Amino acid sequence: MLIVQKYGGTSVANVERIKNVAARVARTAKEGHKVVVVVSAMSGETDKLINLAHQASLNPNEREMDMLLSSGERVTSALTAMAIEDLGCKAMALTGRQMGIITDDVHTKARIAKITGDRAKKALDDGYIIVVAGFQGITENQDVTTLGRGGSDLSAVAIAAALNADLCEIYTDVDGVYTTDPNIVPEARKLKKISYEEMLELASLGAKVLQTRSVEFAMKYNVPTVVRSSFNDNPGTLVVKEDKDMENVVVSGVAYDKNQVKLTLLSVPDKPGIAAKIFNAIANANVVVDMIVQNVSSDGKAADISFTVPKTDSKKALKITEEIAKELGAKSVALRDDIAKISIVGVGMRTHSGVAAKMFETLSKHGVNILMISTSEIKVSCVIDSKYTELAVRVLHDVFGLEEARA
Amino acid sequence: MLIVQKYGGTSVANVERIKNVAARVARTAKEGHKVVVVVSAMSGETDKLINLAHQASLNPNEREMDMLLSSGERVTSALTAMAIEDLGCKAMALTGRQMGIITDDVHTKARIAKITGDRAKKALDDGYIIVVAGFQGITENQDVTTLGRGGSDLSAVAIAAALNADLCEIYTDVDGVYTTDPNIVPEARKLKKISYEEMLELASLGAKVLQTRSVEFAMKYNVPTVVRSSFNDNPGTLVVKEDKDMENVVVSGVAYDKNQVKLTLLSVPDKPGIAAKIFNAIANANVVVDMIVQNVSSDGKAADISFTVPKTDSKKALKITEEIAKELGAKSVALRDDIAKISIVGVGMRTHSGVAAKMFETLSKHGVNILMISTSEIKVSCVIDSKYTELAVRVLHDVFGLEEARA
Repeated sequence: MLIVQKYGGTSVANVERIKNVAARVARTAKEGHKVVVVVSAMSGETDKLINLAHQASLNPNEREMDMLLSSGERVTSALTAMAIEDLGCKAMALTGRQMGIITDDVHTKARIAKITGDRAKKALDDGYIIVVAGFQGITENQDVTTLGRGGSDLSAVAIAAALNADLCEIYTDVDGVYTTDPNIVPEARKLKKISYEEMLELASLGAKVLQTRSVEFAMKYNVPTVVRSSFNDNPGTLVVKEDKDMENVVVSGVAYDKNQVKLTLLSVPDKPGIAAKIFNAIANANVVVDMIVQNVSSDGKAADISFTVPKTDSKKALKITEEIAKELGAKSVALRDDIAKISIVGVGMRTHSGVAAKMFETLSKHGVNILMISTSEIKVSCVIDSKYTELAVRVLHDVFGLEEARA
Repeated sequence: MLIVQKYGGTSVANVERIKNVAARVARTAKEGHKVVVVVSAMSGETDKLINLAHQASLNPNEREMDMLLSSGERVTSALTAMAIEDLGCKAMALTGRQMGIITDDVHTKARIAKITGDRAKKALDDGYIIVVAGFQGITENQDVTTLGRGGSDLSAVAIAAALNADLCEIYTDVDGVYTTDPNIVPEARKLKKISYEEMLELASLGAKVLQTRSVEFAMKYNVPTVVRSSFNDNPGTLVVKEDKDMENVVVSGVAYDKNQVKLTLLSVPDKPGIAAKIFNAIANANVVVDMIVQNVSSDGKAADISFTVPKTDSKKALKITEEIAKELGAKSVALRDDIAKISIVGVGMRTHSGVAAKMFETLSKHGVNILMISTSEIKVSCVIDSKYTELAVRVLHDVFGLEEARA
């Protein structure tokens, strides 16, 4: 088999752990598999570099930021390759560029356009274990780019797709995907298997085990992906195509996200094209809007528009929104950063009715007020006051019976 | 003018100093010059990475070592470019690869083959200050290489040559080139001007202000180079082509080098081709031999061959020498690491006689035994017991009148 193994920051936090990673990689290779390893920066390194950048400049250039940040993964890839060689295997570290990872030129959150991977293919055939610096690529213009937070997951899945790997293993500091955060609900259960769609919803909802875009990529190219711990040999959670069994389970997991803020434009004169105007401007600043709710006022002449954006982009989004508000003649702009989004996810929702109602009822029964609602085929999300987060997660986990063994 | 400015590790040791560098660069640009900046890794970073590598592997792969080490200069170049932009100038960080620095594939001490520099030329014309990550290049096969200790000096001079710069300024933590180490001789005097040849001898003799190969490069391409401090505005020392004035000075400087070891093959049967055999094997391991002395034994049938190599290569050189000794039937191999090389340098030696004799006489008068002698047109070197280093430097500095103002 050709296996891609990705190791996150905590798994390569120091040389001792890098040696453990090397041992696992060597063991996999000695079992007869071809192995491509993708590594993150040693934990803390990326934040250290970001901190240096903000000391050096009030507003660091993003192109230079990418050159800066990409160095963390280079360091780990070189050290990991050395440690693997020390165990008697042939190993070769490759940068994003040497791996042929071509991206667009949106610095600090670039998207992968293609992966050539010719050098890696040849080296694999020559018996090398490949160690790729994750999180990074290169533009057509030869500039270094990075793929955004958690981008090494995306590197791994994209490389697995490009090389037609049989399996992509994401090694992290948790055992797999749980029905919810075990720190909040001790009865949370590890899932043996989950569909791409469910994983995608969970990831986009803030469950941090797998980066959203990497799940999209895995789904698009049908890459069987395992999430497991680098600190033990537990089997982890397999992320695969939806199968018949999965439909029997109405809700697979409860997720929460405290990293969003809610922006509201109050009393926007209701004219066609207003929403487009607002959300185009925000999209042009590369800010991703999550939920959107629009209410028309009682007289029908003005609307309140609320939406959520990541906390990290709140300043940028607020500035743009305030400009737009002025332009549109809105009354004012309100920002709330004490919110949380609680979501339930499950492919079974497609064939079971009343799931959303049960969620609203449960929250209401416990005195949790709902500020915004958003639904998809396999998900219901509610924005609530952040102080109720833990309570909401616990009661939903309980009411949907997630602590019981999955069928 | 087009000016290349190189800043060493102590000049960019932290963000505060990087901001000082940025201020100097911006000032130079605002005076109307085009500026290319070459930066080293923040001081201590390279050693930290080397240390990590030796923790990860008993014998780190040199290709991976280069990928590892090159990250230090990337970090500094990105931070420096950000800091310059913060002062209102346009700046662009370029890696060795983006600068088009092509080298051979001798990892950890690669030689520059050519510099294309097209992107830098265009960016300079577009009004950018270029900040190049020093110490690194790339092979034709797209692998990252490093240029050896002090390699950022070489990057700077080679870039100055390739771009036809008017001046190459090497900023370091000393004021310029001194007649000898002021730590040993407080009366040591800063030279206003020195010829490439003298600088080359001084650099190769261990004076650490400018890396040897960078001086060779400056001489070959006639790059006017200034060595000066980044911590003040003192004018520094200009390294240029030899001129008439310089001939009047017999000795320009006294240098010492404690970073060599002496290897001796004892009683090698004297046959043709023996020296070639030894030094070919050592050269093939990329170890640079400095001094060589061969003595034929009294009966003419066996020879003792002594030579010096850098301390860092002593293990490698000893291993090779022991193998060769066995093959050639030599009696044994002796290694001495308690030696120092003391040298006097001056283009005036070409036209003044008796300089070497005066050196030997002075050392002898102070009880310093000479173990090896080597001379060139503008230099005399003696290997002595290292415990006499400071004494020898002091008495030679005195006897050649170096504390007086230069004519």
